[in-house]
Amino acid sequence: MSHVIRFLISMAALVAFATVESEGQPMSDEFLIAIHGGGGVRSRAAMTPELEAGYRAALRAALEAGHDVLSGGGNSISAVEAAIRVMEDSPLFNAGKGSSYNAEGVHELDASIMEGATLDAGAVAVVQRVKNPITLARRVMENSPHVMLAGDGALEFGKEQGVDIVAPHYFFTQRKWDSLQRRLDQQTEFGKPTSRDSDDQLDPGLYGTVGAVALDKNGNLAAGTSTGGREGKHPGRVGDSPIIGAGTYAKNATLAVSSTGLGEYVIRIGGTKTMSDLMEYRGVSLDEATNAVKDMIEEMGGSIGVVAIDRQGNLSMPYSFNGMYRGYVRQGGDYVVLIYDE
Amino acid sequence: MSHVIRFLISMAALVAFATVESEGQPMSDEFLIAIHGGGGVRSRAAMTPELEAGYRAALRAALEAGHDVLSGGGNSISAVEAAIRVMEDSPLFNAGKGSSYNAEGVHELDASIMEGATLDAGAVAVVQRVKNPITLARRVMENSPHVMLAGDGALEFGKEQGVDIVAPHYFFTQRKWDSLQRRLDQQTEFGKPTSRDSDDQLDPGLYGTVGAVALDKNGNLAAGTSTGGREGKHPGRVGDSPIIGAGTYAKNATLAVSSTGLGEYVIRIGGTKTMSDLMEYRGVSLDEATNAVKDMIEEMGGSIGVVAIDRQGNLSMPYSFNGMYRGYVRQGGDYVVLIYDE
Repeated sequence: MSHVIRFLISMAALVAFATVESEGQPMSDEFLIAIHGGGGVRSRAAMTPELEAGYRAALRAALEAGHDVLSGGGNSISAVEAAIRVMEDSPLFNAGKGSSYNAEGVHELDASIMEGATLDAGAVAVVQRVKNPITLARRVMENSPHVMLAGDGALEFGKEQGVDIVAPHYFFTQRKWDSLQRRLDQQTEFGKPTSRDSDDQLDPGLYGTVGAVALDKNGNLAAGTSTGGREGKHPGRVGDSPIIGAGTYAKNATLAVSSTGLGEYVIRIGGTKTMSDLMEYRGVSLDEATNAVKDMIEEMGGSIGVVAIDRQGNLSMPYSFNGMYRGYVRQGGDYVVLIYDE
Repeated sequence: MSHVIRFLISMAALVAFATVESEGQPMSDEFLIAIHGGGGVRSRAAMTPELEAGYRAALRAALEAGHDVLSGGGNSISAVEAAIRVMEDSPLFNAGKGSSYNAEGVHELDASIMEGATLDAGAVAVVQRVKNPITLARRVMENSPHVMLAGDGALEFGKEQGVDIVAPHYFFTQRKWDSLQRRLDQQTEFGKPTSRDSDDQLDPGLYGTVGAVALDKNGNLAAGTSTGGREGKHPGRVGDSPIIGAGTYAKNATLAVSSTGLGEYVIRIGGTKTMSDLMEYRGVSLDEATNAVKDMIEEMGGSIGVVAIDRQGNLSMPYSFNGMYRGYVRQGGDYVVLIYDE
């Protein structure tokens, strides 16, 4: 690049920066929460009315938990935690109670949380026996000098912090167990799409992850993500969910975002931080940023879904899948819960 | 930001993008390797001639290992691995053999490696008993479908892969053990600067990390980082070193970079990915990108040091500390080894 062009770009960037800093866009004075329960959903053929009602009710309950925090004047980080806890406690999603098994039939959970005002963040990876990893991630953020704890040390910290610790059997669900056995029987290679991935009978939680993003009345953003990780993963595998800048990012000046998909791709490009940087350094909109990263992931052969919001109350929820469990509610607005393209 | 200004910025960005893509800068046809052995060095008062000679010899040996790979036509990822293995095998640096202890007197090691041509990456976190974590990180990249493995699962994968596994005592060094005892006696809070941090007698490995970046004859970049982590850390703590986009990043279109410092800050802003994005989306130079992130980290109250190179053979090595163990060598050039500001 010639020096002249570089100079022109630098000038344009400075103008953009100065503009964002001095003027900004009007901040929304209304709260907003958006959630996802994982990208890649049970096909319409395999979705019974009962099951669909169950998913919709669980997503609605998660939104209500977050909404209650925000309407009561609570902050965005508490709303994110509350919404994610509801999904972690449901057997329907691949997080907490409903987590997928790793290749050895063990549950190893990942989660992270971040607040946009301070860039404070907390994360736990491959943690066993913690009922609500999102709460432990928040404790790491608030009560430790660290950002991320993994494995036995994370469990130990959870015990020190008095979070709910459960027996391994708590995470047992018959359908996840059966799904693992089918996968192991077929020795399906991790991360490679197979015919079973389009099988209507396949447990759709394979790609699952849950996440939430919130904007509170004070204009502060927060984001969080929690998962059991990819079914059949190698013990110790860390996906994108607990990686700040991959599965989760929040920065008041740009966005709050949580992603779902095959995390290995998202880690390699720092998916959510890239969205933030596109907004900050190239001046694109929220929707342009999320779709640009979705395109990058798809070009690499991966898939991704996100829920993202900015401080102006914009909402963006693109995904690569046949659908994504998702929903949102604005202050004074209706609850919106979606599964397929709508 | 007004739509007009956003449009102008988008146009400038498009021009920048098109320019980079279509013209690019002339690629260097010469290889280059740069390394660091950690930021924050023993003060001149506490540095004996013997010890300084030892550091210089170890850094030189690491550079030679990488240089030998590159001059023999080897690729940048192999050069990075070779250089880091030498520093891991030295008792002088906080990585591999010389790693700091965690709060319970256990060594838990982190490492990551990435290649700029493909964005392939591998990482291990809180892994015990693995002699060369950088090699295990490379095996994760090349021989698993995952990017990151942590804890027992990472050790198990190392055994499957046949990497060198050693007894815990291998990592014992008297000075690291003594340093931990002093720290625990004083109950120094993690991450908070204390009077001891400026003590001439303090083991300087507290902040240590090792890293390498290389450019091979084919114009491909690679980067890697390895560490024992911060002394006295909570068991399970994951620093920035194994996080792609925090401690390590490599992308042919932008840079290869490895960082050292207090990793919690670097994780929160995705330090190395931010450098890459500043170059890609704002069109700044390598040196402007590394220094911009250094400024961000320092404004947050943290500290960072990096070695970074780009495909044109530019080199940038800023740091926040009193010095940084570092060095580089270019094809046909002299070996340069530095410790203090020079």
